[in-house]
Amino acid sequence: MGPIKETYVDVLIIGAGPAGLMMAVWMAKCGISTRIVDKRGTKVFSGQADGLQCRTLEIMDSLGFGHRAWRESNHMLEFCMWSPDEAGRLRRSDRIADTTPGLSRFQQAVLQQGRIERFFLDEMAECSDIRVERAVMPTSLTIDEAVVEDPDSYPIVVALRHLTEEEATPKHTTAAANGQPVHDGLFRSNLTKDDTAEMLALSKLNEHAGAEQIVHAKYVVGADGAHSWTRRQIGLSLEGDSTDYIWGVLDIVPITDFPDIRMRCAIHSADSGSIMIIPREKKLVRVYVQLTTTAKVGDEAGSRADRSKINPDIIIAEAQKIMAPYQISYQTLDWWTAYQIGQRVGTQFSVHERVFLAGDAVHTHSPKAGQGMNVSMQDTFNLGWKIASVVKGQTNRSILKTYESERRKVAQDLITFDHKFSRLFSGRPAKDDTDTEGVKMEDFKDAFMKGNLFVSGTSVNYGASAIVAKAEDPSAQRDGIDALSGDERGCLISDQALAPGLVVGMRIPSVKVLSQADARPWHLQELLPSNGRWRVLVFPGNVQDQKQADRLTSVANNFDSRDSFVARFTAADGPIDAVFELLVVHKAPRSAVTIFDFPPVFRRFSDVEGYDYDKIYVDDVSYHEGHGNIYQEFGISEEGCIVVVRPDQHVSYVGSLRKPEAVTQFFSGFMVSQVK
Amino acid sequence: MGPIKETYVDVLIIGAGPAGLMMAVWMAKCGISTRIVDKRGTKVFSGQADGLQCRTLEIMDSLGFGHRAWRESNHMLEFCMWSPDEAGRLRRSDRIADTTPGLSRFQQAVLQQGRIERFFLDEMAECSDIRVERAVMPTSLTIDEAVVEDPDSYPIVVALRHLTEEEATPKHTTAAANGQPVHDGLFRSNLTKDDTAEMLALSKLNEHAGAEQIVHAKYVVGADGAHSWTRRQIGLSLEGDSTDYIWGVLDIVPITDFPDIRMRCAIHSADSGSIMIIPREKKLVRVYVQLTTTAKVGDEAGSRADRSKINPDIIIAEAQKIMAPYQISYQTLDWWTAYQIGQRVGTQFSVHERVFLAGDAVHTHSPKAGQGMNVSMQDTFNLGWKIASVVKGQTNRSILKTYESERRKVAQDLITFDHKFSRLFSGRPAKDDTDTEGVKMEDFKDAFMKGNLFVSGTSVNYGASAIVAKAEDPSAQRDGIDALSGDERGCLISDQALAPGLVVGMRIPSVKVLSQADARPWHLQELLPSNGRWRVLVFPGNVQDQKQADRLTSVANNFDSRDSFVARFTAADGPIDAVFELLVVHKAPRSAVTIFDFPPVFRRFSDVEGYDYDKIYVDDVSYHEGHGNIYQEFGISEEGCIVVVRPDQHVSYVGSLRKPEAVTQFFSGFMVSQVK
Repeated sequence: MGPIKETYVDVLIIGAGPAGLMMAVWMAKCGISTRIVDKRGTKVFSGQADGLQCRTLEIMDSLGFGHRAWRESNHMLEFCMWSPDEAGRLRRSDRIADTTPGLSRFQQAVLQQGRIERFFLDEMAECSDIRVERAVMPTSLTIDEAVVEDPDSYPIVVALRHLTEEEATPKHTTAAANGQPVHDGLFRSNLTKDDTAEMLALSKLNEHAGAEQIVHAKYVVGADGAHSWTRRQIGLSLEGDSTDYIWGVLDIVPITDFPDIRMRCAIHSADSGSIMIIPREKKLVRVYVQLTTTAKVGDEAGSRADRSKINPDIIIAEAQKIMAPYQISYQTLDWWTAYQIGQRVGTQFSVHERVFLAGDAVHTHSPKAGQGMNVSMQDTFNLGWKIASVVKGQTNRSILKTYESERRKVAQDLITFDHKFSRLFSGRPAKDDTDTEGVKMEDFKDAFMKGNLFVSGTSVNYGASAIVAKAEDPSAQRDGIDALSGDERGCLISDQALAPGLVVGMRIPSVKVLSQADARPWHLQELLPSNGRWRVLVFPGNVQDQKQADRLTSVANNFDSRDSFVARFTAADGPIDAVFELLVVHKAPRSAVTIFDFPPVFRRFSDVEGYDYDKIYVDDVSYHEGHGNIYQEFGISEEGCIVVVRPDQHVSYVGSLRKPEAVTQFFSGFMVSQVK
Repeated sequence: MGPIKETYVDVLIIGAGPAGLMMAVWMAKCGISTRIVDKRGTKVFSGQADGLQCRTLEIMDSLGFGHRAWRESNHMLEFCMWSPDEAGRLRRSDRIADTTPGLSRFQQAVLQQGRIERFFLDEMAECSDIRVERAVMPTSLTIDEAVVEDPDSYPIVVALRHLTEEEATPKHTTAAANGQPVHDGLFRSNLTKDDTAEMLALSKLNEHAGAEQIVHAKYVVGADGAHSWTRRQIGLSLEGDSTDYIWGVLDIVPITDFPDIRMRCAIHSADSGSIMIIPREKKLVRVYVQLTTTAKVGDEAGSRADRSKINPDIIIAEAQKIMAPYQISYQTLDWWTAYQIGQRVGTQFSVHERVFLAGDAVHTHSPKAGQGMNVSMQDTFNLGWKIASVVKGQTNRSILKTYESERRKVAQDLITFDHKFSRLFSGRPAKDDTDTEGVKMEDFKDAFMKGNLFVSGTSVNYGASAIVAKAEDPSAQRDGIDALSGDERGCLISDQALAPGLVVGMRIPSVKVLSQADARPWHLQELLPSNGRWRVLVFPGNVQDQKQADRLTSVANNFDSRDSFVARFTAADGPIDAVFELLVVHKAPRSAVTIFDFPPVFRRFSDVEGYDYDKIYVDDVSYHEGHGNIYQEFGISEEGCIVVVRPDQHVSYVGSLRKPEAVTQFFSGFMVSQVK
């Protein structure tokens, strides 16, 4: 063997599950030099996490593959609650929309993790040379603390080792989430055509087995699951506890006379426990079954259930008891597992803003709300563009602190929600109004409906920081972690009243608008693909009103001036829209104006490609898809407003057309001047 | 060299353009042994036909790739008419929806043919082993007329020869539609990632060059273009004539101050001719420019224009004249061609119902209405399932006659439309009301709006035959070609009044319905994928009305009986739904019933997979996508009705719930008994 290979990379991602893949796709979209390694020899093929929340689908859409997930997934439309009637007989006590109408253009859907990983892998391959290096395990990680604040340094050194095929093949019990495949034939039977190349690659692992190499990285993201190796290396831990509830999970093709088996259902039996039913794609149904076993390994508090005593026969037998008098059985079992609810969150999400943890590595909770994979992917969706912009020299390292301030609060909220929802779900239903120990079905329904907004992922509201220009509210960041002081933020505060429907800190809702140039309807979010760009949306109102037209002109003149954010923070030798994209959504009748009625900065001219036709939109009625009424939906008045949207679609700033210079003030708070 | 290889195949397709690929995908979906050969070495990469009509998108969706076309294409929303005002200055005289709202869930869109071919190739690969054999040319075709009526015979013998790379590389002028690439670099620059494998394969052609083989086929489909080799072999010809109008076509990235360049436009200049503007994907715009040159090759009537005198410089100069005072130029030219309008249609579409012609091989016309590729694909979409069902022994050969009776009428209608539209479009605009020689813009608009329905492809109405149970109307088949006599059809006539919105002979319109089992909204057409199956849709009305419930039960009993169409025409050793799929769309409130309130024939039970949850639908309001109101849209009364839909989504029969036996009578007219 020759000398150990040493290489340099901007970003090293450890773990190629959903959180790691989301990070990798961001890096691919932003053109950042990146490696991603995973100790497993292949991707996931069946079972495991599978809920796709509205916001996750919106994010996937922004990455270019939302339509694939939407098309292949099972859509869940209705949530049915079953509980005993007064005679103790199980009946449907209520039914409501599974996703509250109006929250998003997508609704909750279900698809197995293997397909979701496939979409990420395909998208990465489509737009970069980044590939997951499988059967590669990190063996050491050191940080040179002396240089962590130097943006150009590579302070992290990671040693990697190639595993043998045997080492890299999941033992199934250790794969993740306690999963155990039924048998190997089933495991392989879940392969789709897309995945055959993966399996072939597995058999080539041994060519490299045992080889070691050293990687020098600017940033490392540990997305390596609940038992995170990265977390141990950097000395962080999770805090929280477990409950006594033990749940079994079966993915089966059910044979049943239960009429709502294709609905999402919560079934509370009188005294045999509860079931959650999640209908899936390809006739599969996932059932979460509360188990009555209390056998534990060890006696101390917090000890774990003895899962060796749990098997699919036990789980289906419990299910049968809960669902009686309906029958349930199966001949096809795709996957199963058992778990004990544990709710834990990391005390810190990074060290030195150089090594970051994401996903299960910093928060664990029960899977029934379908939150785990979603929140994990959303962690790195938050982190990715920030690291990319720092690596590219566009922004200061200071914005990296907002990863922890923004995402730790979400993790804590999730734990709180999970705690409450799990207890209501696991509890015995109240027999009558006097039964104060039981769970009242009305309370459960109420919690479900309130939780609906939370679990959709669309209610996440990031606290004030350099990149969220709003008034300080320490409680908004839970533990009081303030990303940046008021000084650093230059104390720029949004004028939220100009667009009450567009909450600063939240993701921008999607409403249909029409392209001025070709009358095509677009969902606003479709105009904000995830490519690392900031968007400045100008809502000038009715530009046939001379006052508004004049204001738009002065905004355009400001944006086009030599000391505007565009000129100061965009490299002179790159494309003019490399960092900022300027969009207009006006409210004059579409047919009354053309793009030539708008300032040139919104329809830039190129000698080769002519005018840019994709920057001017209108709030008007479409021929085939109704009228979005975006001004009304966002509560924007005749006065109009300016909105700054982050690369992750969260609203940073809302301000007046009369203060276009505030946009430059905002970006000056964290961006690096490109003027030489 | 060894002996010449001889092989047997059910279907041999000659030509892998859109018509040939549609045929091949049908064969792939139906599992028919098929070969498809093309003399070109690679697929199309740029230029050529590119309009996608509503019906074509519906068909692509039924084949599993409509979403890809819809996503990648440019959607055309508005049609703008420009002509001189009274002062002779060009101005927008009118604007209307490019696709009449309500015609279809899709609207007209534009995408280059290379991508469309890619979708077909991918779908073929996804569901079969059929692959296009490129650089393979037929050299002889003979038919053994003695055995043409024997369904099991292989009466056609075709000799094939492998070409060299040089022979198989399009000379560009001969590629199709007179296309000439600008230069070779541009040609390759249009390659998408998906296509690189094609280019690599091209260089391997010479391995097989010169090899010959003999194919024995049951059926041959000649989809080999306007200069069809197949057509010559079987001695058929096209009839019709050319006009003097000559058009140039440019695919450019325009540099222009014309405000409607991203709209579909018709521009009539005062006396410099006309332009049609078709905005396309990726900033491209196609301009059809009427040329004033009248130079011809030869003097005789019908001689063709001398295209050697036409080049892009001449075309853009003419465009500039027509569009003045607006400027138009380009730096990027993707493709160009020139053509003379010729309208011709084949006298016959097949010989012995063994060798069929489709697409440009049997009809040619001007491309401006974007009809060519669409009608061509729809030819083989009509033919494919018929041949498949005959090859499988499900139906008599007699139904093959309906290919000509149904499609020749469409070709004739197309020629008539094209003739009228071309003249209105090519003509000089009238100066005022007294200018009777000029074209009045109101007449042009009127023709456009009337033509809108025609060009959408949704108005095709097939005449009476064994597979379209309606009253005889000889004129409906134009030249009076009657596919089958009244006797053969058993004179079954639909009761059209039971569903006036569902016209027998036309494609079934799409309206949203909800799945009873999971409340998910589906477009009705999504429930009718193209897989060769017939559908029997039962509309029982409100099944909470006991009378209607009883009628549904008697329909179910009839369908489930031993002498029903299901039992008689489905092979006992195959799946019960191999030939017929039974669907219900009821009108009781969704929440008032479950699938168990419906007869078992609509929710069949399997020991392995449990109940079938995908056959019962309801006309009710959805949570997120409104209410389709299908009963109202189709004009179905409380009485309900039974509807038979062909594998190509055309309505065959509408009848009463009280006469379920009529369905068996209908299928008995052309199906082969499977009872042994």
